[in-house]
Amino acid sequence: MERTGFAYDFPHDSLLSVGDLNPLDVQIIFERARHHFDAARRGDKQGDTLKGLTQINLFFENSTRTLASFEIAAKRLGADVVNFAAGSASISKGESLDDTALTLAAMRPDVLVVRHKSAGAAAHFARVTGVPTVNAGDGAHEHPTQALLDAFTLTRRWGEVGGRRILIVGDILHSRVARSNVSLLNLLNAEVRLCGPATLLPADADRWGVTVFHDLEEALEGCDAVMALRIQKERMTGGLIPSDREYAALWGLNEARLERASPECLVMHPGPMNRGVEIDGALADDPDRAVILDQVESGVAIRSAILELITGRAPNGAIADMRAHDMDGLGDGA
Amino acid sequence: MERTGFAYDFPHDSLLSVGDLNPLDVQIIFERARHHFDAARRGDKQGDTLKGLTQINLFFENSTRTLASFEIAAKRLGADVVNFAAGSASISKGESLDDTALTLAAMRPDVLVVRHKSAGAAAHFARVTGVPTVNAGDGAHEHPTQALLDAFTLTRRWGEVGGRRILIVGDILHSRVARSNVSLLNLLNAEVRLCGPATLLPADADRWGVTVFHDLEEALEGCDAVMALRIQKERMTGGLIPSDREYAALWGLNEARLERASPECLVMHPGPMNRGVEIDGALADDPDRAVILDQVESGVAIRSAILELITGRAPNGAIADMRAHDMDGLGDGA
Amino acid sequence: MERTGFAYDFPHDSLLSVGDLNPLDVQIIFERARHHFDAARRGDKQGDTLKGLTQINLFFENSTRTLASFEIAAKRLGADVVNFAAGSASISKGESLDDTALTLAAMRPDVLVVRHKSAGAAAHFARVTGVPTVNAGDGAHEHPTQALLDAFTLTRRWGEVGGRRILIVGDILHSRVARSNVSLLNLLNAEVRLCGPATLLPADADRWGVTVFHDLEEALEGCDAVMALRIQKERMTGGLIPSDREYAALWGLNEARLERASPECLVMHPGPMNRGVEIDGALADDPDRAVILDQVESGVAIRSAILELITGRAPNGAIADMRAHDMDGLGDGA
Repeated sequence: MERTGFAYDFPHDSLLSVGDLNPLDVQIIFERARHHFDAARRGDKQGDTLKGLTQINLFFENSTRTLASFEIAAKRLGADVVNFAAGSASISKGESLDDTALTLAAMRPDVLVVRHKSAGAAAHFARVTGVPTVNAGDGAHEHPTQALLDAFTLTRRWGEVGGRRILIVGDILHSRVARSNVSLLNLLNAEVRLCGPATLLPADADRWGVTVFHDLEEALEGCDAVMALRIQKERMTGGLIPSDREYAALWGLNEARLERASPECLVMHPGPMNRGVEIDGALADDPDRAVILDQVESGVAIRSAILELITGRAPNGAIADMRAHDMDGLGDGA
Repeated sequence: MERTGFAYDFPHDSLLSVGDLNPLDVQIIFERARHHFDAARRGDKQGDTLKGLTQINLFFENSTRTLASFEIAAKRLGADVVNFAAGSASISKGESLDDTALTLAAMRPDVLVVRHKSAGAAAHFARVTGVPTVNAGDGAHEHPTQALLDAFTLTRRWGEVGGRRILIVGDILHSRVARSNVSLLNLLNAEVRLCGPATLLPADADRWGVTVFHDLEEALEGCDAVMALRIQKERMTGGLIPSDREYAALWGLNEARLERASPECLVMHPGPMNRGVEIDGALADDPDRAVILDQVESGVAIRSAILELITGRAPNGAIADMRAHDMDGLGDGA
Repeated sequence: MERTGFAYDFPHDSLLSVGDLNPLDVQIIFERARHHFDAARRGDKQGDTLKGLTQINLFFENSTRTLASFEIAAKRLGADVVNFAAGSASISKGESLDDTALTLAAMRPDVLVVRHKSAGAAAHFARVTGVPTVNAGDGAHEHPTQALLDAFTLTRRWGEVGGRRILIVGDILHSRVARSNVSLLNLLNAEVRLCGPATLLPADADRWGVTVFHDLEEALEGCDAVMALRIQKERMTGGLIPSDREYAALWGLNEARLERASPECLVMHPGPMNRGVEIDGALADDPDRAVILDQVESGVAIRSAILELITGRAPNGAIADMRAHDMDGLGDGA
């Protein structure tokens, strides 16, 4: 772990995988995100740290909300943002993905934000183009800004996530959200549990550094937070998931089920929610438990921080701010 | 009517319905719109009253021109604008409308501009989110910025609309444009007439404070302005409207038909026009009569004014400017 | 040719056709483009020469890359940019093209960028609206910014294109890229050659001021640059072009084929490329020959220059810069 006393330059010019981060990186990201989160709450949303930079959002998969989050994060800091229509046939017109990437890079953008259905796509774009790149979801592989916003949401509540017990419920196997969250929570020394239908749990879960449960009530025992993953309806037609009703009965979160969890157990969901399936509506609306909208709000702040840090535009004050905070409790998962 | 001599704060943080406005509100809106209208004509389009604000345009119905008008209005004043694709399946992905609204609100926008096919949608979004909201059309209910831009267009020509006779022709029953115009013109003490096929007139038109005519020539008698509504082709297949040709023969506006109207009778259309159906091409192009492009131009100015006023960003000078004008002739329709 | 010693105002408020330009216009465009090209390479992309201006990109044909290029060019200089969805049914809703144009013009944009499948569409929009307009491709007619970026790319390499031999290969008949390039290269006193399937060469090529070849090897003799046109797959189904494989065998560019060209012969392609059809992948990637990504990079710079010049926003320094350069070698093709 690189760490030289009073000076720490953020050492990444892309955010492709949680696995590239060490705990100090995460702390710097969180410090800068905290600044943006608080500023937005105060209604002070005018920044210029990204002024003069061009960001291209290259979404091969539709995701209105993630796109909006990245777009707002960048525009508030003064960047010029160009969106490429998701799934648009016009993105490639039969040209190779590499040629698309190189063509865009030739327009001299400063950041690419890439969402693609293939694992490794964002990393490939970063390598081919040399342009700082944020992975906004690559297949079932990673979604690092989602994991960061989730851990940031919890950190705002708890001070830190280290030592806390967190359960992720649902289709772990196909979830980049789960994969990135497991990596980050492990890095931050949380205890991670996974639970879901046996067919949707990874076969090598023990190698993930987590505990796997097949019974939801048991899994919830003593949890400080539980995250319901979104059910992909297409998995149902594939036979991997039973009907909505069956799924809700077996794996859906609701107030009653949280009885064995910690009394202050927080409830998370990456959105968009299928109410009545993976999460009960009343629970999703419970202001004492649900932090689902906090997650969305944190998303803009985290993305603002990431964009500033990978482009070298975070002001020096960001590091100074960080030193003023307690740096103890940092794990050494690197 | 709240009115305290020399100080008047615009009392609305959303624009959902013309029914929420009183004549002084309208005068303030018009004063500010006049400022923007004149500035744009002078080529002086650079403003920063909305700098640091984020506007989300949430269009569940396609409307390229209305979207462009709101987008231009906001960007010219320095706002960051994020568009959500109209009709895009990705807006909801099966989540509830309230969850979509709350998710967007969690990104801390300062204004929502909402178009939706259901009456009351924008008001519902405003209530659920607490974010200042402009209704850009909600089903057959209201389209308040359209009514404001129409009345502003007439006010620029006449000084005021009070006492003038204005006819609206067409499918009144399904028209939010008609509904909002009737409310606003009544508020401003104009005389409003409606005319159209009997099946497309409201059954309770007498309660609207208008006079209903079944004969177009008679309805046009002495009119100072006449507004042709756009024919929705889908109404024809539904049998409510005859063919294009029959419609034009019975209800289409043309020069000959305006004989009984005032010699200076102005001709309006909310666009996009079906030339040769609800309006004759030569009449639409008559520079002495048609103010159709003035309406479009006024639209940007009115929307700029509304965005500034509901976000509390209109400079104090706007009120001072207003006091410098003649405030007589204000009706008291509140 | 208008030319008055030390002062030269750019005399065009639209860019519709290469035929409207004289060599001095081109030199001014290139000088200003050079400024933007170098600034972007230095990472200095923040400008404000277009601040306060509104640009509407009106693309009736899909073209993600050209749209992005114009969007980036404008935003980097501070313009407000509004995009109209390509091919969107909502652009017209049955209204006439002229009404769409006039409606947009009434919103007081400062520039229109128009792509349309019909020859003359951009010129028509410019005439109807009176708004400065850039032709971003009109059917098989013209694509002037493409020709400018191509010649700019070559000028950066060679100093000037006058006296050089340049070959264009492919479907000349349907190519606006070819048509605009021929005009501009002739204007700049280059020697232009055309080659391709007999059915895809213009019947009146001799009147174009070019030499036509039916044999690719012969055409390449002594060439300083060769440009492969993109094959439109729909031409194949129409029977005008054989299969991919046959096309590549007869007309595809590759290293071996360049043997008779100049040893430093440059290779160009307007993109997107069909690798293995009109151009061999290894050749497209050859850093000593291919300038394909330079073309893309030049595109943003050229469009920035054009937008500034037609709106009268290019700083006076641009002309002064130009005078500092060698003005000899200007052809007099006007």
